[in-house]
Amino acid sequence: MSFDAGFTIWLTGLPCSGKSTIASLLAEGLLNQGRLVEVLDGDVIRTNLSHGLGFTREDRDRNVRRVGFVANLLSRNGVVVIVALVSPYRAVREEVRASIGRFVEVYVDCPISECERRDVKGMYGKARAGALQGFTGVDDPYECPEHSEITLHTDRETVEESAGIVLSALRRLGYAQDELSPPVSTPKVRQRMAELGVWRPE
Amino acid sequence: MSFDAGFTIWLTGLPCSGKSTIASLLAEGLLNQGRLVEVLDGDVIRTNLSHGLGFTREDRDRNVRRVGFVANLLSRNGVVVIVALVSPYRAVREEVRASIGRFVEVYVDCPISECERRDVKGMYGKARAGALQGFTGVDDPYECPEHSEITLHTDRETVEESAGIVLSALRRLGYAQDELSPPVSTPKVRQRMAELGVWRPE
Repeated sequence: MSFDAGFTIWLTGLPCSGKSTIASLLAEGLLNQGRLVEVLDGDVIRTNLSHGLGFTREDRDRNVRRVGFVANLLSRNGVVVIVALVSPYRAVREEVRASIGRFVEVYVDCPISECERRDVKGMYGKARAGALQGFTGVDDPYECPEHSEITLHTDRETVEESAGIVLSALRRLGYAQDELSPPVSTPKVRQRMAELGVWRPE
Repeated sequence: MSFDAGFTIWLTGLPCSGKSTIASLLAEGLLNQGRLVEVLDGDVIRTNLSHGLGFTREDRDRNVRRVGFVANLLSRNGVVVIVALVSPYRAVREEVRASIGRFVEVYVDCPISECERRDVKGMYGKARAGALQGFTGVDDPYECPEHSEITLHTDRETVEESAGIVLSALRRLGYAQDELSPPVSTPKVRQRMAELGVWRPE
């Protein structure tokens, strides 16, 4: 198998479990390995691909299928696609896995109390107060993966550790090459991160 | 400029003007040149990306933006994206052109009487009878391009001639290399055409 073939990394988990931050670190790591990378993040997707879809099971499933459709188009042309999406229902995740084939499911596991603690936008609070309906983890279900390739525990790992676990697993699973030395992001990688909309200046 | 850099070929025109057929021939020609190719065809898009959108100007514009978003993701990763979409409004086509940058607009020009004659699905007839509302060319506007890179006249060109005109123009515009000999599709190209859903066995 060529190390340049595309694949999809699918991060699933509760709101505020850390999916987007880990997606950003993974993008940087994979760009440093010279890979083509795109990030399909829940919020961006809701604006560009799925405006008008709501949060019923039907609409959530449609959103997941739509993201899967785009991830498949990119993956089969050599791109590493990193999806960061709550995607709470197991069945449709399995459907997307089957359609893409080269698919690495990452369960971003985090106790809901910790997700709530991190929630800077106060979404959990609104959901608890009933001001936000159909919020995953509060009044809408989350079905955790039963056979994910990777499980992260973001309550007891740093985000760098979580990203490192994924990158190691990609090597083990045959999707990425061994790194010889820890990479330093070049200006080109920084620019690409900015284009992806995931660069966090710090 | 690298000849492997991606770009988008955007075929716009009335229903039944010949967009999908030409898209299929272009895909074959570009695959024969060793390019990565995807076809985003109106009908497929309505199923996979834009289910739920109707045919008001707002929904049509949203559909065009959405296809443009996906075309941009693919093009910036080296893929030649062939879009076959009525896309009747000039302003949003210009918006997509600006966002993608490497963009070749192809106006598939054909008199409406000829489009109607070809219409195997009888859509024009339904629109004329009032059974289909908001049908481009009948009771919905079509704004032809003012500055398209290429204009085809599919009432007086064969589909092979039309595709040939586009491929020649791509070379002239610097998007493709000169061909040394007329290509013959390999089994690999045929297989890829089948995956794209545009292969017409004949």
